[in-house]
Amino acid sequence: MPDKINRRILFSRLMVGEPRVEDFKLIEEPRPEPGEGELLLRNLYISIDPGSRARLSGRASYVPAKPLGEVMDAQSVSEVVLSRHPDFRVGELVAGYHGWQDYAISDGRRLSWIDSRQRPISTAIGVFGLPGLSAYIGIRKLLKVTAGETVLISSAAGAVGSIAGQIAKIDGAQVVGIAGGEKKCDFCQEVYGFDQMIDYKSEGSISEALKRACLKGAHVYFDNVGGELLNAAIANMRRFGRILICGQVAEYNLEPGQGIGLRDVSAFISNRLDMRGFVVLDHSEFFEEARRTMADWIKEKKLMVREHIVEGLENAPRAFCGLFRGENIGRSLVHLADPKE
Amino acid sequence: MPDKINRRILFSRLMVGEPRVEDFKLIEEPRPEPGEGELLLRNLYISIDPGSRARLSGRASYVPAKPLGEVMDAQSVSEVVLSRHPDFRVGELVAGYHGWQDYAISDGRRLSWIDSRQRPISTAIGVFGLPGLSAYIGIRKLLKVTAGETVLISSAAGAVGSIAGQIAKIDGAQVVGIAGGEKKCDFCQEVYGFDQMIDYKSEGSISEALKRACLKGAHVYFDNVGGELLNAAIANMRRFGRILICGQVAEYNLEPGQGIGLRDVSAFISNRLDMRGFVVLDHSEFFEEARRTMADWIKEKKLMVREHIVEGLENAPRAFCGLFRGENIGRSLVHLADPKE
Repeated sequence: MPDKINRRILFSRLMVGEPRVEDFKLIEEPRPEPGEGELLLRNLYISIDPGSRARLSGRASYVPAKPLGEVMDAQSVSEVVLSRHPDFRVGELVAGYHGWQDYAISDGRRLSWIDSRQRPISTAIGVFGLPGLSAYIGIRKLLKVTAGETVLISSAAGAVGSIAGQIAKIDGAQVVGIAGGEKKCDFCQEVYGFDQMIDYKSEGSISEALKRACLKGAHVYFDNVGGELLNAAIANMRRFGRILICGQVAEYNLEPGQGIGLRDVSAFISNRLDMRGFVVLDHSEFFEEARRTMADWIKEKKLMVREHIVEGLENAPRAFCGLFRGENIGRSLVHLADPKE
Repeated sequence: MPDKINRRILFSRLMVGEPRVEDFKLIEEPRPEPGEGELLLRNLYISIDPGSRARLSGRASYVPAKPLGEVMDAQSVSEVVLSRHPDFRVGELVAGYHGWQDYAISDGRRLSWIDSRQRPISTAIGVFGLPGLSAYIGIRKLLKVTAGETVLISSAAGAVGSIAGQIAKIDGAQVVGIAGGEKKCDFCQEVYGFDQMIDYKSEGSISEALKRACLKGAHVYFDNVGGELLNAAIANMRRFGRILICGQVAEYNLEPGQGIGLRDVSAFISNRLDMRGFVVLDHSEFFEEARRTMADWIKEKKLMVREHIVEGLENAPRAFCGLFRGENIGRSLVHLADPKE
């Protein structure tokens, strides 16, 4: 039987600028009981998502504002520990959206079974979850990267960028990654095989660095960051260059009007650029193909998956704050417990 | 025989901010003589193009900087007055790029014969020239506007916007136009049949005006202006909205760094926007279809063409400066002479 206590981490203070651990509060509550048609989940892994920041300023942004006092949102890998739902049995492993807490009640909706390809089980919310799906669908279905193209990727060591860059390599592209720090840059070249890396922390001018790295300009920019990197990329695209806006992590901590936006719209005419914003949930028709294909690549060691796993629910706030200081390589997760069997 | 004198208007001073008539100089030179394989053209109409401004600051922008002392660029409708070229005969009418001058020498390249559909002949560089082609190809081939969509168009009384809006109407869209001044707005509703007009000169907040005009947001924004209007449009697009950047007239007079750019990139994620820069010359495969279709529409009175014609080469600088004060309704042209027959 599971513990009687449910630890939960609440969003407890509106954020201004960089997130702080004091913006969260850990509380203990009695473990909830599933009603008829419900099940009790024990979270094994929860995700630490930079995009969550956009909801934590008390303002609607590209997502609605999150009310204070709610449990933090996260993707989760969970084990069914009690079930009063006909479709789920105790011991089954499921992926869903069950927040920063030990236990959660589900009515079975927005839950998917973790299948045997998804090993370690944490990959269900990493390469086989939203980050990996964003990478696959972004590169293959929206950007339609082809062999010989130069593909620029920001946050190249991150959960999405690291997968996106490897898929672009598999599809024959030249990959130029942008990441912060020598360690990440070396990792991306050595482990992911990216052709060139730009350490934005050591470059005076990102635009000049991009110019050197992409001599004829980039065909594609897969943007996870926004801000200065987006502007530098726009200044270094080839004619008919395609830009996918997947994330804007440089912008999430800013107050309204603080963002630098996009300075040079005339480049869109001169280079016939196309820029598109992207949310992977719009493209669920490709999920099965993406998971199947990536599972094969992982088996063949064409696709390397790196996770940044922090131990213990109580450390989730610190892991979240660390994201914005670039502390993670790969998908950032918190490990809470192991499955029973 | 033609005159012996060729009046030419040179670009004679680098522009800062709004163009002034003193930035140009009219000179007189002997009429040039065509060499073997060349022909002498007499310009009948020349175009006044806002986009030319981008070349006149001494800086490369989306086009290379234009050197001081050169004759101003323009599209032209011309008559062949002397020919030493096997393909052209005296009296033929051609459209080309022969600048602000009475006469020009051509080697026959980048010239096209004006056919009998193109009447009055000035339409060869208006609705049948780059502005009309931009409108047709932008609306039908790139934006692929469909019936029932809300299409927002800036500079809706201008050479491109007025045609683009009418084509969107023909294709069943609701057209919301933006123009400066009551006169233009009334004209667009009465003559072009646009559903709603926003007079940006009388509105405190363009974004609020757009919100009222497009209650559920716009599906499409055909941008000829940039600047504040582009930002207001981005704030009022529907999910999966498409933006075509065709011109940026609000930006042409600005020094580097003065432009407001595009402030809210996160809207691209929240509303899955797509923004694309566009130069019609990339799409010449559609020119014949566009000309044929628009000629039919004009005959059937589905498409109304309005030209703003100024008399006399010497008035071209004033007409050019007037563009930036919004003095024209429809294509701005200068009439120099009539054909002989």
